[in-house]
Amino acid sequence: MGRDTVLRNSYIRDFRMNDYTIDQLYDGMTESFKVVITDKMMDSFREITGDINPLHMSDDYAKEKNFDSKVVFGMLSSSFLSTLAGVYLPGKRSLIREVDVKMKKPVYVGDELTVSGQVCDINAELNIFYIKVTIINQNGDKVLRGKMQMGIL
Amino acid sequence: MGRDTVLRNSYIRDFRMNDYTIDQLYDGMTESFKVVITDKMMDSFREITGDINPLHMSDDYAKEKNFDSKVVFGMLSSSFLSTLAGVYLPGKRSLIREVDVKMKKPVYVGDELTVSGQVCDINAELNIFYIKVTIINQNGDKVLRGKMQMGIL
Repeated sequence: MGRDTVLRNSYIRDFRMNDYTIDQLYDGMTESFKVVITDKMMDSFREITGDINPLHMSDDYAKEKNFDSKVVFGMLSSSFLSTLAGVYLPGKRSLIREVDVKMKKPVYVGDELTVSGQVCDINAELNIFYIKVTIINQNGDKVLRGKMQMGIL
Repeated sequence: MGRDTVLRNSYIRDFRMNDYTIDQLYDGMTESFKVVITDKMMDSFREITGDINPLHMSDDYAKEKNFDSKVVFGMLSSSFLSTLAGVYLPGKRSLIREVDVKMKKPVYVGDELTVSGQVCDINAELNIFYIKVTIINQNGDKVLRGKMQMGIL
């Protein structure tokens, strides 16, 4: 998967993914992809979770609270860490063990996010490594950063 | 919202939610709800994220890797932390700032999860508090635990 891939469609018909073993990973190895947040994603996330908080539904409510418009669920932005692990780093053999995320700035519908992960702290004996994650919007603002502890199946 | 509410329907028509201010929260305050994981949730999550990893699609692949059947996305289980914050603790004024989760055991489609949160470390001056989170399946196994740093809008 190229790092310029844009997941514009909500349903992915392209089943290619990376398939790295622990020995093929190296410190500093980086993958990234772009995704545009849509209203359909917001609706689907609300349907899955039942989170009907108005901050994520109502522009008026969000503006009252000093946001530009309704805010994308932080856990929706975080859900792309699943893709980062399961498709890119390491891809097929991915098993997410731990995830830490910090929401740094609001994400809005229509934002084009660049989701990037960098491999660190590889432990080949335990088949464990870490990914440092950043998500940046189209203005270059870091909206989320995080870290994942990964297993390899 | 009662703690016995079961979010069986993917689309929630009940717009009731808690609306706690920082002064109404107290150390040890607890809320929980139940949710049954469905194939529709899995499909929707895959459509949102583009995570087409076979561990979450193929029973055969998952069994090869010593799971009982295809495994629920860890970040899908984690997405109910959005509901816990946005509907229950504190409800309407919720702003998620940080989330840490550890996936302890696999979750399978059909599992009934009990998502529980307990308030701790309230800082009324900064309008910040923390939620300790556990997710337990219908067998009493702790499948996920985590912690959230919350703001109040």
